[in-house]
Amino acid sequence: MSGKIKVGVLGATGMVGQRYIANLADHPWFEVSYVAASPRSAGKLYKDAVENRWLIGAEIPAGVADLMVYDANDFKSALGKCKFVFSALEMGKDEIKALEESYASIGIPVVSNASANRWTEDVPMLIPEINPDHTDIIAVQKKHHGWDKGFIAVKPNCSLQSYMAPVYALIKAGYPVKRMVVTTMQAVSGAGYPGVSSFDMIDNIVPYIGGEEEKTEQECLKILGSIEGDKIKNARYPLVSAHCNRVPVIDGHTACVSLEFDLPEDKKPSLEEIERVWVNFRSYPQEQNLPSAPLHPIIVRHETNRPQPRRDREADKGMAVTIGRLRPCRVFDVRFVALSHNTKRGAALGGILNAELLKAKGFFENL
Amino acid sequence: MSGKIKVGVLGATGMVGQRYIANLADHPWFEVSYVAASPRSAGKLYKDAVENRWLIGAEIPAGVADLMVYDANDFKSALGKCKFVFSALEMGKDEIKALEESYASIGIPVVSNASANRWTEDVPMLIPEINPDHTDIIAVQKKHHGWDKGFIAVKPNCSLQSYMAPVYALIKAGYPVKRMVVTTMQAVSGAGYPGVSSFDMIDNIVPYIGGEEEKTEQECLKILGSIEGDKIKNARYPLVSAHCNRVPVIDGHTACVSLEFDLPEDKKPSLEEIERVWVNFRSYPQEQNLPSAPLHPIIVRHETNRPQPRRDREADKGMAVTIGRLRPCRVFDVRFVALSHNTKRGAALGGILNAELLKAKGFFENL
Amino acid sequence: MSGKIKVGVLGATGMVGQRYIANLADHPWFEVSYVAASPRSAGKLYKDAVENRWLIGAEIPAGVADLMVYDANDFKSALGKCKFVFSALEMGKDEIKALEESYASIGIPVVSNASANRWTEDVPMLIPEINPDHTDIIAVQKKHHGWDKGFIAVKPNCSLQSYMAPVYALIKAGYPVKRMVVTTMQAVSGAGYPGVSSFDMIDNIVPYIGGEEEKTEQECLKILGSIEGDKIKNARYPLVSAHCNRVPVIDGHTACVSLEFDLPEDKKPSLEEIERVWVNFRSYPQEQNLPSAPLHPIIVRHETNRPQPRRDREADKGMAVTIGRLRPCRVFDVRFVALSHNTKRGAALGGILNAELLKAKGFFENL
Amino acid sequence: MSGKIKVGVLGATGMVGQRYIANLADHPWFEVSYVAASPRSAGKLYKDAVENRWLIGAEIPAGVADLMVYDANDFKSALGKCKFVFSALEMGKDEIKALEESYASIGIPVVSNASANRWTEDVPMLIPEINPDHTDIIAVQKKHHGWDKGFIAVKPNCSLQSYMAPVYALIKAGYPVKRMVVTTMQAVSGAGYPGVSSFDMIDNIVPYIGGEEEKTEQECLKILGSIEGDKIKNARYPLVSAHCNRVPVIDGHTACVSLEFDLPEDKKPSLEEIERVWVNFRSYPQEQNLPSAPLHPIIVRHETNRPQPRRDREADKGMAVTIGRLRPCRVFDVRFVALSHNTKRGAALGGILNAELLKAKGFFENL
Repeated sequence: MSGKIKVGVLGATGMVGQRYIANLADHPWFEVSYVAASPRSAGKLYKDAVENRWLIGAEIPAGVADLMVYDANDFKSALGKCKFVFSALEMGKDEIKALEESYASIGIPVVSNASANRWTEDVPMLIPEINPDHTDIIAVQKKHHGWDKGFIAVKPNCSLQSYMAPVYALIKAGYPVKRMVVTTMQAVSGAGYPGVSSFDMIDNIVPYIGGEEEKTEQECLKILGSIEGDKIKNARYPLVSAHCNRVPVIDGHTACVSLEFDLPEDKKPSLEEIERVWVNFRSYPQEQNLPSAPLHPIIVRHETNRPQPRRDREADKGMAVTIGRLRPCRVFDVRFVALSHNTKRGAALGGILNAELLKAKGFFENL
Repeated sequence: MSGKIKVGVLGATGMVGQRYIANLADHPWFEVSYVAASPRSAGKLYKDAVENRWLIGAEIPAGVADLMVYDANDFKSALGKCKFVFSALEMGKDEIKALEESYASIGIPVVSNASANRWTEDVPMLIPEINPDHTDIIAVQKKHHGWDKGFIAVKPNCSLQSYMAPVYALIKAGYPVKRMVVTTMQAVSGAGYPGVSSFDMIDNIVPYIGGEEEKTEQECLKILGSIEGDKIKNARYPLVSAHCNRVPVIDGHTACVSLEFDLPEDKKPSLEEIERVWVNFRSYPQEQNLPSAPLHPIIVRHETNRPQPRRDREADKGMAVTIGRLRPCRVFDVRFVALSHNTKRGAALGGILNAELLKAKGFFENL
Repeated sequence: MSGKIKVGVLGATGMVGQRYIANLADHPWFEVSYVAASPRSAGKLYKDAVENRWLIGAEIPAGVADLMVYDANDFKSALGKCKFVFSALEMGKDEIKALEESYASIGIPVVSNASANRWTEDVPMLIPEINPDHTDIIAVQKKHHGWDKGFIAVKPNCSLQSYMAPVYALIKAGYPVKRMVVTTMQAVSGAGYPGVSSFDMIDNIVPYIGGEEEKTEQECLKILGSIEGDKIKNARYPLVSAHCNRVPVIDGHTACVSLEFDLPEDKKPSLEEIERVWVNFRSYPQEQNLPSAPLHPIIVRHETNRPQPRRDREADKGMAVTIGRLRPCRVFDVRFVALSHNTKRGAALGGILNAELLKAKGFFENL
Repeated sequence: MSGKIKVGVLGATGMVGQRYIANLADHPWFEVSYVAASPRSAGKLYKDAVENRWLIGAEIPAGVADLMVYDANDFKSALGKCKFVFSALEMGKDEIKALEESYASIGIPVVSNASANRWTEDVPMLIPEINPDHTDIIAVQKKHHGWDKGFIAVKPNCSLQSYMAPVYALIKAGYPVKRMVVTTMQAVSGAGYPGVSSFDMIDNIVPYIGGEEEKTEQECLKILGSIEGDKIKNARYPLVSAHCNRVPVIDGHTACVSLEFDLPEDKKPSLEEIERVWVNFRSYPQEQNLPSAPLHPIIVRHETNRPQPRRDREADKGMAVTIGRLRPCRVFDVRFVALSHNTKRGAALGGILNAELLKAKGFFENL
C-alpha cells in the first residue's frame, strides 16, 4: 500500500491529460488509479488508447500504461476507484459543465483545467500563490448543490500565468496596477493535440487565438476578487488589453507587458523596488511547502535577451514565472517580458498544485 | 542600349544587397551595372562571391551573375560605372557614414538602407507615401557639403513599416495619434545572413533585438517631422513604447498595436471611419505611378486570423501594409495587427521606391 | 466569352483543391466554372466556404471566390457547368473510386490527383514527360465501361516526382536502373490541411508517412510499364527501397538517392554523361509546348549544398526537378539529391499538365 | 573535500563545452575545476564569458559560473588545477592537434571530442560499448611520445552514434554486415553555436554537411578495427554510403538505414532475432556500472512512427540509441530508423563515458 490518495484523470488521452499522467508519476501524495476519456478510447488499455500519440517524452509511466480507460461520460465508474479527479476534458462547454457536476454530485471532487466552470459564481478559480482563500467559497457551493463531499475547483487560462503572479505581488506590496497592454506569444501545446496545423506554424505566426483575449482580460479580475456573501466579487482593476498570438514554440507562453500603476507619480515604485518585490515574493504554497510549489515563484533575469521559452520554461520544475527586460515604459510606467510553462504551471502542474492546496486545507478528508 | 539608368549596389553580397539585385532584375528605370562588397569578395565574379550563399530563390539574375565585384571602400571605382548607388553596407556605423559621404562627394548619390545617416540633420529619412517633401532638405545638404550632384537619402528601420503608413493615414485624415504600445514579431531576414542562429529559432523566440526598440520609437518622429530652416524638426507625437521580438519567420514583420488618439472622446473616429481612411489612402507614389508603388498602400482584411506573414507578406508586390483584427482596445482607443514585408517594403524595395521618388522629382538629372 | 474550356474542381476547399484554383487562375486553356466539396461546404460561396482557411497567399482568385460550392456527391450538378473535372477529393478510397466513375459515366472526364484509381488496370497513371502514350489505354477503359465521352486518368503520388524523371531519362538514354535506396524528406503540405500537427513538426521530424513507402516503391513500376492488350503491364525494374520522412518544410519534397545501374561495369555512364542526359532531357510536353510544361524538366546544380526546398522548389514554375550533389556512391553506382514541388509538380500543376496532355491528344474534343 | 577528480574543459564556452559543464554538474567521479577557451574569453568569469549565450536551460551550474576562464593556448595554466581535461576545442585542425599534444606532454590526459586526432594512428577512437580494449593502444602512444602520464583519447563523430551500436551488436552476435546505405537527418546543435543560420532552417532543410559523410563512412572502420602491433588496423567492412542532411531539430540525429548482411541467405537473421540481439545487448560500461552508461544501450520501439527526435532523444539519460521501424528492405536485407542524442551520447556525455572507461581501467591513477 502506497498510502497515497488515489486520483482519476478525465480526458486522460489528450495533451493536458497526458501531462497530468506524466507529472503525477512520482507524486508524493497522489497516485493515478483511474483514467477516463472519450467512448472511442473506453475499454482499451491506456497504452493502447494513446499508441502513436503519446506526446511527452519516450515512455508512458509504468503504473498507468496498463490501466483500463473508462468512458468519461460514465461518471459512476469512478466510484471506489479514486477519491477525486483532475478534469482535462475536451468537449463542448455545456457538456463539461454538466459532467463535472455529475462527478461532484456523487461525492468525487473535481479539480478542473477546463474553462466550463470558471465563471460559475460559487466555483473558485485558483492560483494558490494569489487567492488561496477563495477555497472558502466551496462551502457555499456544496450547500447550494446539496453536495456532501464533492465540489468543483478550477484554474484559470494558461495565458494569464505569465503575468498574474508578478502583478499580484506588486498589488500585495502596496502598488496597485491600473492598466496593462499585454501581447502574448503562445506555444502550440496550449491548443491541445493535434491542435494547430503545422502548415500554419512553419515560417508563420497566427495573430489570433479564439476566445483567449477575452479570457485573459476577464479571468484576472475574478482571481483578484474577494468573497462577498455567497459569491466571488470581481476586482475592478487592472484593466487589461490583450493581443494573443500563436507562435512556433512547443511549450512556454511569453508575454510582453506595459503596465501603469494606480498611484501618484511620487508613490510609484522604482525598478529596483519592483525587482525586490518580485524576488522576495512568497505565498501560501511556499509557506506550506506544497510538493509542486516552486521555491521562488518569480525569477528575475538580467541578461538582455531573456526570458526565452526553450531556456526558461523549465525553471523551478516548470512552476516559476521568469521575468526579464524590466525597464521604463515610454507610454506607461514600466514594461517587461514574462514567461511561464503553459502545460506545467499553466495546466497540469497548476491543477496539481491546486489539489495540493485543497488537500493542505483539508478538503480531501473523509472522502 | 537599354536606356535605363545604371545603378550600383554597395554591400551587394549581403541579405539586403541580394534583395536589391533580385528586385532590380526587371526594373523599368534602373539597371545594375556595378556591385561592390567587402575586400574579401573584391575581384571575384558576383556569382562566385555568393556561391552557396545566394539566398533568394534558385538563380542569381543573369545580368548580374557575371559582374565583377569591387571593393566598396574603393569608392572611386564606381565613377563611370553607375549614376547612383543603393547602399546596403554592413560595417561599423562610422565607417558607413564616411563611406556614403565619399560616394556623394564624387557626385554619386547614395540611396541608403543603412542606419548610419538616419539622424544626420540634413539627410531625409523617406517613406514616399508619408514624407515625399522631405527631399527638399537635399538642397541644404548639398550646399552644406559643397556637393554638386551627390547627396544622401535614407530609409527608416524595417520595424516601423508595418504601422507607419496606417498611423500617418489617420493623422493626415485629421485624427492625430497621441500614443501607442507596439509589440513586434520580426522575421529573421531582418538580421541579415547568417544573422540569427537556428539554435535560437527552433522551438523558441527571442524577446530582444539590439537597438530596434529605440529606432522604432524615435525614427517615426523624424519621418513625421517637418523641414524648418536647414533641418528636419521632429514631430512630438506619437509617443511609442515598443517591444521587439524575433520569431521563426523568414520574411514579414508583424506588429500588434494599441493606439490612443489625441482627440476628445466625441471626435474620435469609429472603426468604420478608420477602415475607410485606410482603404482610401493614396499618396505621391500612387499619384505618380511610381513603378514599385503598391496600388493600395494599406489593405484591410476581415478574416479573424489575419494578417499572417506567410500568407500576406507578398501583398501588392510585397509593398502593401496588411491590417487585420481592427477592434476596440480596452485600455486605449483601438487595436489592430499590421504586417509588412521587411526585406521588400522594409528594405530593398523600399529603397528602390525612394530612388523612384527621387527620380520623379528630378534628382537624378544631369548626373 | 473567353473561349476557354470550362472545368470543375472536386474537393475544391482542401489543400490540393485550393492549389488547383490558384494555379488555374490565369490558365490559357482552362477556366474554373464549377467547384464541389463536402456537404458541409455545399451551398456556400467558395470564399465563405474557405474563410480563414485560404492557404495560398493572400487572395482567392477573383473568378472563383463568388462561385457557389456544390456537394461533390451530387455529381449530376456538374452537367452543363463544366467539360471535365479535376479530382482532389479527400474521402475514403472506395467512395472516391465510385464517385470518380460516376462523373465519368455521365460524360465528364476526371483528371484525378487521388490514389483511388491508380491501380485500376485500365486507368493510366501519367507523368507526361515519361509515359504520354499510356493515354492509349483510355479507349479500352471507355469500351469496358461503355462510356461515350467520360474517362478517368490519374497522376502518381507526389513523393515519386523528385526522382522519376531523372531515372526515366537515364533509362531512355540506354542506362537501365536496377535498384535504388531512396530516403525522402517530405513537406507538410503533402498531408493536406490541417494535416500534420505543429506539435509533431517543431523541433522534430516524423520518420513515417502512412502508405507512402508502398506507393513510392510500386507506382514507379506502373509508370514505366507498357500497354499490353487491354491493360498496362508493370515494369520489373527498378527495385526501390523507400524511407519516407515528414520534415518541417511547407512545400518541396527532397529525396536522397543511391542508385545502381543494370549494366556491366564498363557500360555504366560517367557522372558527366549522367549530367548530360539530364540537362538535355526533353519530352512530349516540351515538344508540344504544353502551357504548364517546364522548359527544362531536369535542372542540375553544382553548389555543394543544393537543392534546398525553399530555394529550389519554384524552379521553372514549380514544375522542374532540381538535382544536386551528383557523386559516386560507395555502395551502388551513383548518388544524388533531387527535389520537386509537391503541390505544384507533385499535385495540382501535375494534374493540370495531365489535362494539357489529354487536350493536346484530342481527348476533350466533342465533349 | 569532495574526493572527486578535478577536471578541466577546453573550449568551455562553445556548444559542446557548455554541454560538458552541464553534464558534469553532479557527476559522482569528476568535478570541473578548470575552464579554458579563446583569448577573447580569458580572464573573465565563466558566467560573464557566456553571458547571453548560455545555451542549455536557464542556469549555469553554480560551481562553474564563478571560475575564471583561462586562455586554452596557455596549456601550462592547467597544471595543478585539474588532473585531466575534456577537449571541446573549436579551432583549426592542426592547432587542435598541437594543443592537445601540448596538454598531454605536461602530464595532463586529454579526452577529446575534436576530430583532429581521430586518425592519429596510436590514438584510440572509443565507443565504450564497442571497442573498450582499444585503450590498450595508449601504452604505445605514451611510449612513442615519451609521455609519462599524459595521453590522448578521442570519440568519433556524432553522426555515427545512431547506428554504430546496433551494427556492432549484430556483428558481435555473429551477423557480419557487408554494406549499408545511411541517410541522416541531423540536429543543428551538431554545428555548434551560432552554427547554422536560422535563414537556412525555417521552411527548409540543407542536404549537405561539410566533411560529415566522409567521417561517417570511414570512422566506423577504425572503431571496428583491431590493434595490430603498434597501431589500430581498420576493419574492412561494413561499406557505408552516407547522405547527411541538416534539419530543423535542436538535438537528436536520426538515421534511415538499409543494411545487407555478409552471409548466405539461409544464415541471415530474422527480424525477431535482430530485435533479440539489440534488446539484450550489454557491454563493458554496463558490466562495470559506469555512471553515465545507459542501462539498455539499444531500445527498440514498436510504434509505427518512432523514433522521433523530440520524444526519444532523452532515452536513458540521452545515452541510449532508440530504434524503430525494423522491417525487410526491398533492396538489401533489413531497414530501420535509429536515433541518438548528438550532444549527449554523440558529444559531451559520450566523452564523459570515455573518461569513465579510462578511469575504470586505471588510466587516471597516479596523476
